[in-house]
Amino acid sequence: MEFWFRSRAVIDELVEKFLDESKEWETMEMSKYIMRDGKRFRGTLMFLFNGALGGEEKDAYPGALATEILHSASLALDDIVDYDEIRRGMKAAWAVYTNRKVIFVSNYLIPTALSIISGYGDKALRISVDLWKDTAVGALKDMYGKDEDYVRTIELKTASLFKLPTMLSSFSSGRSEFLDTLMEAGKDLGIIYQLIDDYVDCVTQDKDKLVGSARQLFSLTSGKFESFVRMKYREYKEHYETLLRSLPVKHDYLDQLVALPDFLAFGLMGEAGIKNKIF
Amino acid sequence: MEFWFRSRAVIDELVEKFLDESKEWETMEMSKYIMRDGKRFRGTLMFLFNGALGGEEKDAYPGALATEILHSASLALDDIVDYDEIRRGMKAAWAVYTNRKVIFVSNYLIPTALSIISGYGDKALRISVDLWKDTAVGALKDMYGKDEDYVRTIELKTASLFKLPTMLSSFSSGRSEFLDTLMEAGKDLGIIYQLIDDYVDCVTQDKDKLVGSARQLFSLTSGKFESFVRMKYREYKEHYETLLRSLPVKHDYLDQLVALPDFLAFGLMGEAGIKNKIF
Repeated sequence: MEFWFRSRAVIDELVEKFLDESKEWETMEMSKYIMRDGKRFRGTLMFLFNGALGGEEKDAYPGALATEILHSASLALDDIVDYDEIRRGMKAAWAVYTNRKVIFVSNYLIPTALSIISGYGDKALRISVDLWKDTAVGALKDMYGKDEDYVRTIELKTASLFKLPTMLSSFSSGRSEFLDTLMEAGKDLGIIYQLIDDYVDCVTQDKDKLVGSARQLFSLTSGKFESFVRMKYREYKEHYETLLRSLPVKHDYLDQLVALPDFLAFGLMGEAGIKNKIF
Repeated sequence: MEFWFRSRAVIDELVEKFLDESKEWETMEMSKYIMRDGKRFRGTLMFLFNGALGGEEKDAYPGALATEILHSASLALDDIVDYDEIRRGMKAAWAVYTNRKVIFVSNYLIPTALSIISGYGDKALRISVDLWKDTAVGALKDMYGKDEDYVRTIELKTASLFKLPTMLSSFSSGRSEFLDTLMEAGKDLGIIYQLIDDYVDCVTQDKDKLVGSARQLFSLTSGKFESFVRMKYREYKEHYETLLRSLPVKHDYLDQLVALPDFLAFGLMGEAGIKNKIF
């Protein structure tokens, strides 16, 4: 928790500095709006894994920043396509600036984030481009995918931007031999995150109003989503812990990394004000 | 002209094959719609410059395909933001498939094109990411830029996707020592293309209805756009010819490369049915 508060503050500073240095005045104001007030969970993963593998904190900065840029851009686009008028407690960017501007600013922010990532080398860039592509395929599967593909859909849609920081931490810490394991760890965390997010929707919303992967979860389990979520949560959490044991994690990071699944799940359930029946 | 007909047919085949091989059924139908019936000018540049520098035709395939994917995605997004209902003689993609789908399919197509480009190596990928970013900045400057920045705006907005294929041809032909010259040549051609496109708008449209760079051109020249366009056209064409002389162009390609500025300009003016007063 404390680690998160601190990394969130650092990320907020990085974002502010990045935006203030922007030479393109046309993009700055709106980029600021799009990037305001995030929870910075994904960026925090970059700090945690980078530190756990022995990287210096400053080596995590570009990765955390780029991750949050991509995440914010994807939210801004999601809001357009969902016609959601509220984001992070304020009007959605499109409702303030129009679709037009949001689309172009996103088209500016996305390659800008990729350029920042290219500082970690060409392999990091290449994988990041593929992960970004995966988020788009996931967004489509979220709408049109089959219920049976639920887990694959949330992996593509959500876990891609969790894989991104854990993957980048292998480069930032100079431990690229753990690339695959780190990608897997990010995948587990992202699936857990979306699983609980959909669980919250299934619990709190009228079942006729469920959309996307939450609707798929409800329909796949014929409404008996709780036991399914509990089972999958355990399965991915155990897998994640197995991965952690195979990584040379520095001692003072281990507890925090182990606690991540519960931290993410607890955060989502707490936000929605529902009781934990999962873990 | 004949070269263009042939390369257009080859590109149409490449596009069809690419789409039929798509594993993501959610994207295929709409991607087909977005990519239908292009003039394939930009992809043709890839064939021309690759061939002129001694590359094999097949080495140009990925670059031509990726260029046309990016171009089509950018048009589909432009139509959303402009609320244009007609594109290439049919309903615009958003009017058929909704904004939602077009945004996500574009977010899928763009990194897919970048992945294809990465086959030319990491430097090619890195430059392509930057060029894509430039198109987004250009789109914003098209709306909010100053009239005095007109040439810079059209360079960013339009010439970026002309630079892309000429730049890639340096990698496809194995002549990366000419990278900078080829980028410059693409820039000249792209500026010429947009200059004439805006000229056509200024000639054919009511001046109150001009938007974007065409409006900037009109306003910058206080309505005396013709002499300005003629001057700039000559300037960029001469610069382009100077660049061509510094490249080791194969003899049988020289005439076609030299003719490109007039070919592009003539094509645009012919399409609009206006008389040539420029060259």
